[in-house]
Amino acid sequence: MSGSYRPEMTNAGLPATCPVLATDEYQNTRELHIAEERPLTIYIDSYEIVTLMTLGTQPELLALGYIKNQGLVSDLKEIKSIQVDWDVNAVAITSFSERDDWADRLGPRIVTTGCGQGTVFGDIMQNLDETDIQSYELKQSDLYSLLKNLNIHNDVYKNAGAVHGCALCQGIEPLIFIEDVGRHNAVDAIAGKMWLEGITGHNKIFYTTGRLTSEMVIKVAQMNIPVLLSRSGITQMGLNLARDLNITLLSRAKNKHFLIYNGKENIIFDIELPAKLEIANVKKD
Amino acid sequence: MSGSYRPEMTNAGLPATCPVLATDEYQNTRELHIAEERPLTIYIDSYEIVTLMTLGTQPELLALGYIKNQGLVSDLKEIKSIQVDWDVNAVAITSFSERDDWADRLGPRIVTTGCGQGTVFGDIMQNLDETDIQSYELKQSDLYSLLKNLNIHNDVYKNAGAVHGCALCQGIEPLIFIEDVGRHNAVDAIAGKMWLEGITGHNKIFYTTGRLTSEMVIKVAQMNIPVLLSRSGITQMGLNLARDLNITLLSRAKNKHFLIYNGKENIIFDIELPAKLEIANVKKD
Repeated sequence: MSGSYRPEMTNAGLPATCPVLATDEYQNTRELHIAEERPLTIYIDSYEIVTLMTLGTQPELLALGYIKNQGLVSDLKEIKSIQVDWDVNAVAITSFSERDDWADRLGPRIVTTGCGQGTVFGDIMQNLDETDIQSYELKQSDLYSLLKNLNIHNDVYKNAGAVHGCALCQGIEPLIFIEDVGRHNAVDAIAGKMWLEGITGHNKIFYTTGRLTSEMVIKVAQMNIPVLLSRSGITQMGLNLARDLNITLLSRAKNKHFLIYNGKENIIFDIELPAKLEIANVKKD
Repeated sequence: MSGSYRPEMTNAGLPATCPVLATDEYQNTRELHIAEERPLTIYIDSYEIVTLMTLGTQPELLALGYIKNQGLVSDLKEIKSIQVDWDVNAVAITSFSERDDWADRLGPRIVTTGCGQGTVFGDIMQNLDETDIQSYELKQSDLYSLLKNLNIHNDVYKNAGAVHGCALCQGIEPLIFIEDVGRHNAVDAIAGKMWLEGITGHNKIFYTTGRLTSEMVIKVAQMNIPVLLSRSGITQMGLNLARDLNITLLSRAKNKHFLIYNGKENIIFDIELPAKLEIANVKKD
């Protein structure tokens, strides 16, 4: 872990929700909270990279993790400052070298970013060939403790819905919990925080409320995290990638329930559960 | 409605789910179905546009709706053929003019496509200024009938989870129901079907199981649909856009429950509900 160098950074996180009035089926007017959603355009050395739609609570970490996960900058010390200015919905990342070849570096990459529509698949997959994720054993009892500890988070979700939460966990404790309107933003913001603090992924568990599609598995692999846990479902490609990359993959993790799709040998069943009641009741996301 | 001209098209939809083995919390091995997720690269006249991650059940409609919603082609008659070849995970769209300036037309647009990460916001918003969506009245009784009729769909979701369903509806009937691993793909495929069949949006209702973020509202506005209905939640920007564009917006629509966030005056309360039981029980997505 390094974590000693920090770029100059603003601290421009905004509130996650706002109150609005809605009318329910009884014609009652109710004040409810809904999630914010703000455009944030990332610039590196004045070059426009992408516009993300975000909750806006962790704009600096999101920008940092985004450029890291896109492979645009590999050493934190290259980054001089990260300045968010909500007046123009922008975050300006300045490098020490003030490169002018960002367009070339971005080239074909940025075309393929997104969720469901356009993905990082192409180039990133090549880099993943070099990934060497070591198996990590997880006790069923610790998994349950972790899920219980995660329950105290999900603040925005509980208050307003319409967001996904992601957490970096160690043992039975969530270390970082971030919510955003898109799953990928939450993952990127966690990657940004890990980068900034010099936190490695090899002995960690990644939890998400969202679905485990290919892109989520890729991003977790980029962080070298051996266990991926979701409250929701998975796709076939997400599963195939987890198999290829040696990631233990659990879905539908909620209360006492979970489904292991990959890495069964890494789960230590150390709990005697009461007779099963819910086998026909697999909850869908 | 035109709907008379049809480009030559393959019919290369693939099964939505596949069976896999998983281990549950009781150490039981269970055969479950999970959603497929396949890369599909769209080419126009041999120019590579984007790679989408899709369920793969409606690849031709998805490609068609994608280029329509991105504003790349405005007249269906410009399109000669749509050929999907899963051996190379590609769909080739051929235009009659076989243009070679797709790069210029795409330019800044494609950078900003996605879900949460990168959005169509910039250019598309300008086009939306010309949108003139007429209010459409909806009876509470019809809304309930529609929600009941929608219940028979959501096949993949019920079977495997990890997908979102979208439906184009008229009165109390779903006309088109499409599921995909991303909400935006499902919307685009519906847009493709509407374009192909010459179906207009002005007297329709759009239903989605997914969240109503800004991009979903934008895409529905592009189709001129006056009512947007979600089983999940909304974001503040989605709401602001719906207000600006005169779209009636309902969220948490499930069973007898719903929340009207915009266009209350368009909902006709023609039902006497039993005494309320669930006011504190607003379900989150």
